[in-house]
Amino acid sequence: MSLGIWLVGGRGSVAVTSMIGAFALRAGLAPATGCVTELPEFRDAGLAGFGDLVFGGHDPAPVPLAKKAEQLGDAGVVPAALVRAVHDDLAAADAEIRPVPDGPDQATVAARLVADLVDFRERHALDRVVVINVSSTEAAPEPHPAHDTLAALEQALESGATVLPPSALYAYAAFTAGCAFVDFTPSAGARLPALAELALREGLPHAGHDGKTGETLLKSVLAPMFAHRNLQVRTWSGMNLLGGGDGATLTDPGANAAKSASKQRVLEETLGYQPQGVVRIDFVEDLGDFKTAWDLISFQGFLGTGMRLEFTWHGCDSALAAPLILDLARLTGAAHAAGHQGPLTDLAFFFKDPLGDGPHGLADQWQTLTAFVATLSPRSHP
Amino acid sequence: MSLGIWLVGGRGSVAVTSMIGAFALRAGLAPATGCVTELPEFRDAGLAGFGDLVFGGHDPAPVPLAKKAEQLGDAGVVPAALVRAVHDDLAAADAEIRPVPDGPDQATVAARLVADLVDFRERHALDRVVVINVSSTEAAPEPHPAHDTLAALEQALESGATVLPPSALYAYAAFTAGCAFVDFTPSAGARLPALAELALREGLPHAGHDGKTGETLLKSVLAPMFAHRNLQVRTWSGMNLLGGGDGATLTDPGANAAKSASKQRVLEETLGYQPQGVVRIDFVEDLGDFKTAWDLISFQGFLGTGMRLEFTWHGCDSALAAPLILDLARLTGAAHAAGHQGPLTDLAFFFKDPLGDGPHGLADQWQTLTAFVATLSPRSHP
Amino acid sequence: MSLGIWLVGGRGSVAVTSMIGAFALRAGLAPATGCVTELPEFRDAGLAGFGDLVFGGHDPAPVPLAKKAEQLGDAGVVPAALVRAVHDDLAAADAEIRPVPDGPDQATVAARLVADLVDFRERHALDRVVVINVSSTEAAPEPHPAHDTLAALEQALESGATVLPPSALYAYAAFTAGCAFVDFTPSAGARLPALAELALREGLPHAGHDGKTGETLLKSVLAPMFAHRNLQVRTWSGMNLLGGGDGATLTDPGANAAKSASKQRVLEETLGYQPQGVVRIDFVEDLGDFKTAWDLISFQGFLGTGMRLEFTWHGCDSALAAPLILDLARLTGAAHAAGHQGPLTDLAFFFKDPLGDGPHGLADQWQTLTAFVATLSPRSHP
Amino acid sequence: MSLGIWLVGGRGSVAVTSMIGAFALRAGLAPATGCVTELPEFRDAGLAGFGDLVFGGHDPAPVPLAKKAEQLGDAGVVPAALVRAVHDDLAAADAEIRPVPDGPDQATVAARLVADLVDFRERHALDRVVVINVSSTEAAPEPHPAHDTLAALEQALESGATVLPPSALYAYAAFTAGCAFVDFTPSAGARLPALAELALREGLPHAGHDGKTGETLLKSVLAPMFAHRNLQVRTWSGMNLLGGGDGATLTDPGANAAKSASKQRVLEETLGYQPQGVVRIDFVEDLGDFKTAWDLISFQGFLGTGMRLEFTWHGCDSALAAPLILDLARLTGAAHAAGHQGPLTDLAFFFKDPLGDGPHGLADQWQTLTAFVATLSPRSHP
Ligand SMILES: NC(=O)c1ccc[n+]([C@@H]2O[C@H](COP(=O)([O-])OP(=O)(O)OC[C@H]3O[C@@H](n4cnc5c(N)ncnc54)[C@H](O)[C@@H]3O)[C@@H](O)[C@H]2O)c1
Ligand SMILES: NC(=O)c1ccc[n+]([C@@H]2O[C@H](COP(=O)([O-])OP(=O)(O)OC[C@H]3O[C@@H](n4cnc5c(N)ncnc54)[C@H](O)[C@@H]3O)[C@@H](O)[C@H]2O)c1
Ligand SMILES: NC(=O)c1ccc[n+]([C@@H]2O[C@H](COP(=O)([O-])OP(=O)(O)OC[C@H]3O[C@@H](n4cnc5c(N)ncnc54)[C@H](O)[C@@H]3O)[C@@H](O)[C@H]2O)c1
Ligand SMILES: NC(=O)c1ccc[n+]([C@@H]2O[C@H](COP(=O)([O-])OP(=O)(O)OC[C@H]3O[C@@H](n4cnc5c(N)ncnc54)[C@H](O)[C@@H]3O)[C@@H](O)[C@H]2O)c1
Ligand code: NA
Ligand code: NA
Repeated sequence: MSLGIWLVGGRGSVAVTSMIGAFALRAGLAPATGCVTELPEFRDAGLAGFGDLVFGGHDPAPVPLAKKAEQLGDAGVVPAALVRAVHDDLAAADAEIRPVPDGPDQATVAARLVADLVDFRERHALDRVVVINVSSTEAAPEPHPAHDTLAALEQALESGATVLPPSALYAYAAFTAGCAFVDFTPSAGARLPALAELALREGLPHAGHDGKTGETLLKSVLAPMFAHRNLQVRTWSGMNLLGGGDGATLTDPGANAAKSASKQRVLEETLGYQPQGVVRIDFVEDLGDFKTAWDLISFQGFLGTGMRLEFTWHGCDSALAAPLILDLARLTGAAHAAGHQGPLTDLAFFFKDPLGDGPHGLADQWQTLTAFVATLSPRSHP
Repeated sequence: MSLGIWLVGGRGSVAVTSMIGAFALRAGLAPATGCVTELPEFRDAGLAGFGDLVFGGHDPAPVPLAKKAEQLGDAGVVPAALVRAVHDDLAAADAEIRPVPDGPDQATVAARLVADLVDFRERHALDRVVVINVSSTEAAPEPHPAHDTLAALEQALESGATVLPPSALYAYAAFTAGCAFVDFTPSAGARLPALAELALREGLPHAGHDGKTGETLLKSVLAPMFAHRNLQVRTWSGMNLLGGGDGATLTDPGANAAKSASKQRVLEETLGYQPQGVVRIDFVEDLGDFKTAWDLISFQGFLGTGMRLEFTWHGCDSALAAPLILDLARLTGAAHAAGHQGPLTDLAFFFKDPLGDGPHGLADQWQTLTAFVATLSPRSHP
Repeated sequence: MSLGIWLVGGRGSVAVTSMIGAFALRAGLAPATGCVTELPEFRDAGLAGFGDLVFGGHDPAPVPLAKKAEQLGDAGVVPAALVRAVHDDLAAADAEIRPVPDGPDQATVAARLVADLVDFRERHALDRVVVINVSSTEAAPEPHPAHDTLAALEQALESGATVLPPSALYAYAAFTAGCAFVDFTPSAGARLPALAELALREGLPHAGHDGKTGETLLKSVLAPMFAHRNLQVRTWSGMNLLGGGDGATLTDPGANAAKSASKQRVLEETLGYQPQGVVRIDFVEDLGDFKTAWDLISFQGFLGTGMRLEFTWHGCDSALAAPLILDLARLTGAAHAAGHQGPLTDLAFFFKDPLGDGPHGLADQWQTLTAFVATLSPRSHP
Repeated sequence: MSLGIWLVGGRGSVAVTSMIGAFALRAGLAPATGCVTELPEFRDAGLAGFGDLVFGGHDPAPVPLAKKAEQLGDAGVVPAALVRAVHDDLAAADAEIRPVPDGPDQATVAARLVADLVDFRERHALDRVVVINVSSTEAAPEPHPAHDTLAALEQALESGATVLPPSALYAYAAFTAGCAFVDFTPSAGARLPALAELALREGLPHAGHDGKTGETLLKSVLAPMFAHRNLQVRTWSGMNLLGGGDGATLTDPGANAAKSASKQRVLEETLGYQPQGVVRIDFVEDLGDFKTAWDLISFQGFLGTGMRLEFTWHGCDSALAAPLILDLARLTGAAHAAGHQGPLTDLAFFFKDPLGDGPHGLADQWQTLTAFVATLSPRSHP
């Protein structure tokens, strides 16, 4: 099964780290640490192999993939030796990263995005393509009636209006081109009702939102611990310090707000109430692609006794995200092949702000994921 | 269902905190925070109510319960006002805490322990009694052939030999008196094969070992997180600083070793390998009943990138343990009533070093526990 | 030497904790932990004794001192038993806390403040009075020409204009009444040039700004450490979580900004450059008067190697501030007696944002302070 | 002024990092971050320039300097590019690292060490040589009468006895050869009275003990802060996790004990009392040359209120130590030139367990150091 991975934001840190990794794994140069789909539970799911993956994408940035990869090597995100080893693969992939097309109106731009996707699939004779949004986080869009129904949306686009934020336009193009869509960011993506409707009309699956790679990952195991022990969380406050491109984007208050909101949902969903406290995100250039998150949790135990937990997480965001990109591509590709349509709520394990009403605790999401995987197995849908 | 709770170590911090709490809950003076069995999942399990609990115990210490409770109030373990409010209940319970009987040989001591238990059950007309070990941690006993089979044990005791460590003698007496037994400490308790055999012969359930209230609780949610994300834990080192009676006991190298070992099992069981690193336990008088545990976890992600997590847990050990004592008494009492015999492996959720081969991840243990509880419901065993 | 301490914000946490402490120390009920002026270096400085202190103040809040003290006892800021022991002293002091006077214009209000101060000094036959601002932090005032010279200020007040922020009006009243003035907050206080001029005209000393009790205290020893070891600090970011009245005030963006700015100066002054990073202050009601500050410092060593220091400070703000209020009153009173006028730059040891151009490292400030104290000794100015 | 630096343990991490650094600084390839003697206060002290330094040493290890340097580059202790740039200098220096001589008795070995030193000085026509011990930490030696006086020591050596631990034998050889001696380790070195006597007889300066590069450095600024604020430190506990060669050595209980003791002195000396708590040192291979130290400090403030400070220090030990080696060589060389003899107590700034009765607070040590430096200036001793 040849699988295309089309990365919106294809020259960014997450995108390039995932390409380096895929090429290194294909060449047997590194173990698949961090790849969830390489655990035994996924062995029989018929997922695409690392050798079956073909990369393309959109990005307005001019920096060549090989150059970006070198920067990631210098920054300690990936071993510099691996970057050198996959240089030729990166150079080849570079040709598949398209600039963001321009046009007189959004309908035209969408058509050009669709053309890029179709051209990519055909030239590489791919069985299917998964479009994954790993571009810069947007601010939440202003509500607009064209977001509510597919009919309204199509009419608005036809009229030459500009109604969709970029992430949603990519989702629109993906579905129109017959591709599945995954949103690894907190942006609108396919969560506008009109786009969810389009996905269903085209019989395509989609997944999101916002990859869960650090503080929220911890919340998704710690909050259930407090809940199951009937301990009352009073305060959960956090500070996230990060550099890198993502950190720079998050200095924009709109993007920052979108991200912070995405990070809080797990508490209310898991505990059944919202503790006091806020999450702060600050840009600290010096930290580069490494992020430091500090959280303070104060809680009450038996007879009201006050206690506290503090943690500090020093994670390399791109290194945490990249294997999940490969996981999501493989799983969404297989889901598409198996005929799944609409929101893949069973992939909540990967997301901060998952689609649907499923569990927010990581262990429950793991159960859901492994149960879902059983349905993908070629043996289970002949 | 009137339920006796016989606390070995009945004048210690955990014991007295659990009594204060039970009396306060019975009187509606405090919410049941920290009591797992008060969560909705346990509503229909037919557990004993807080008003059905009667306390007794063994302890060589002379300090009156009311005095110990006052100390716990001064130390901030429980609110001083609550201590005053339950003063009369504590004074009444005080009469039920027996000194540790003496005797010419272990068989005689065992018989006196049994007599204390039977007397307690009869005077209070209790449906059943659960003996819970919350006495000071012992060093691991030297192996002895009399530990291996019940026949050998009974013969040794008859011959006047001293072969059992105190915790195991309590287990022996409990089973002989027809009581279930729970070991909340890392001591030998009922885990010697001869005693497990005795429990089965008498048709009695038992549970243990070592209440999971802090660092190990965190390990049991964090280690599965690393495993499910296929991240490679390289180092897991920890330092536990604690004061109080338990801390003082753990300055004894034997007790310390027993405790440290108990704290490490979860990693190997959950990750499938043992990371580098040690757990240190140090006594710091000034910390009193509050414990500070600091852990450093270093791990590798995608393509070998090194990352780290640090946490600091500031917990009040007795306040964390006490509600679990009530939980374990209620659950073990109900299990006894429902005809369960032998090791209650489904109670692993509560223990650092659980009996049996069940899962070590907290979320899986929670599933097991709630499934088990369904079997206790009066409706499920008429 | 009888010394009046007039507390602007006399019903606040810092004010009431300092009164409880002074009464307890006077009665010999507690050791003078936290009082700098009780160290041997201050023995011969001829400072007022705890028994010589008389308290008064202004506060618009209606809560009686005894009630506020009880709240501080419940919150663990001071021992509840001490609060009971000094109940009568608090009740007596209560009568000396005046509401904030009203009036048709600022000149009138100022005159009424002056009258309150003079009345207090005369009724208690005090040798002198030190006015200390421990009221809520204000936003920085808009610049106004009347702030620049005393002549312009007096003219503006005569014309009926409202030109001073409250803290500066208190400083104006203090100087007019012949009292020294200390600003323990980051508010404008006496730092407007017109007021500094007034202090000199009246021959009065003043000190400030913003008591140094937590994160900044640590910065003032850690930053010199990095500087003296020639290590390059790249990032210094911090998060302050606090509840209490002060925390609530700091949810106001203006007050928050004033405070954050005050906290950063020490780095630039001590290191010679401003590292990256910000200080965040967030209100977390549950933390009450206890504050948690977390700081991340990343630095470069030999040949550029990156390293880091993290700290978490769990301090009780009022308990840290209160003894410094007593210290500042005693020292400023003695400075007044010894004829010091204008800014007491030698008291920089106590402040986040000290007056003058003195050193910002704590150890140097300590040297300055102890040298200054030698000049106060009655023997040194006969 | 040409200055020889003779490194005992010349193939270890600290030694090799300091050589890489000296060569890089000489070539202008890196800024002198971490070098205290490059601060403005040292400008006129007439210290040897980086170009004046010549390296030699003793080490039983066979690994070539260039190879060790490469390992340090791979481990992130120094930039790999720098290692490549100074390759030739390292290769040249390699020839000056001698194996540890053997001999029938200690007197003979000492004579051979002396011969190596004299040969090094003469071949390079060095003005003087400073011997610096950066070899593996030893256990504290058993007391022996020959340690007490020079006469007894010389008699014992003449008699063919083995009475000195290795570090002290190096000090003996250094003094005999007319070289100053610095002990950067907690080993005995020159602190045995017989050796101190020898240094004086030969008119040579010496310095030590145990470079202050991490947790103790922090203690030396934090403990004075608590003291000057009259806050009562109750507990100071710490855990040090480190890999590398030094970490491996410290798994030896004797070496570990020597190191732990060295780390505690600062508290008693600075606070005036010894708080509760211990320092643990554990080897964690995975951490390599990076060390993580976590400390918990609990303290009491006004009226007994309990508070706490925690810090985590992630330092690269060799990168912290190496510039200090250069500093100590330059300062001790200049002190020798200026005629200083016996213990250089004014260099306490650099040591965990300094010689003499000077201050233990870092700021005071800094004052002492800069005052001392003024006496070195060529202008001050013509
Ligand atoms: N790394 C993680 O752990 C993680 C976790 C969750 C979510 N995310 C999200 O993933 C996204 C990527 O993160 P990153 O660190 O790679 O950021 P990055 O800044 O390195 O990369 C973003 C890329 O998107 C490109 N881009 C911007 N606008 C675009 C547009 N309209 N169309 C196409 N490309 C566009 C940029 O040029 C850039 O190359 C961010 O939104 C981030 O919030 C990352
Ligand atoms: N508190 C927790 O979170 C927690 C968690 C897991 C396990 N535990 C274990 O629970 C036990 C109790 O902890 P604690 O803090 O109450 O300790 P504690 O020291 O306050 O109390 C122990 C009591 O046991 C009594 N005792 C000693 N020897 C006895 C004997 N032979 N027979 C009967 N009583 C005896 C002592 O007199 C004392 O009153 C310890 O073994 C501890 O390791 C506690
Ligand atoms: N606690 C510390 O460690 C610390 C350190 C540095 C500075 N400070 C500053 O000290 C001040 C007091 O802190 P707190 O914790 O006691 O706060 P708080 O909120 O408990 O008390 C402030 C008091 O000021 C009163 N007030 C408000 N406006 C007033 C006015 N116009 N005139 C007179 N009184 C007025 C309020 O009614 C209140 O009683 C704050 O500005 C704080 O920023 C405190
Ligand atoms: N790095 C720091 O921050 C720091 C701080 C204070 C003290 N120290 C001390 O500095 C010393 C060196 O640390 P390191 O990290 O370089 O250790 P290391 O293990 O890398 O190097 C020690 C070297 O000493 C050599 N050696 C052993 N026995 C010897 C002997 N008898 N004669 C000559 N050489 C011998 C070893 O072969 C090795 O090459 C240690 O004692 C350490 O405790 C280091
Ligand atoms: Na930390
Ligand atoms: Na911490």
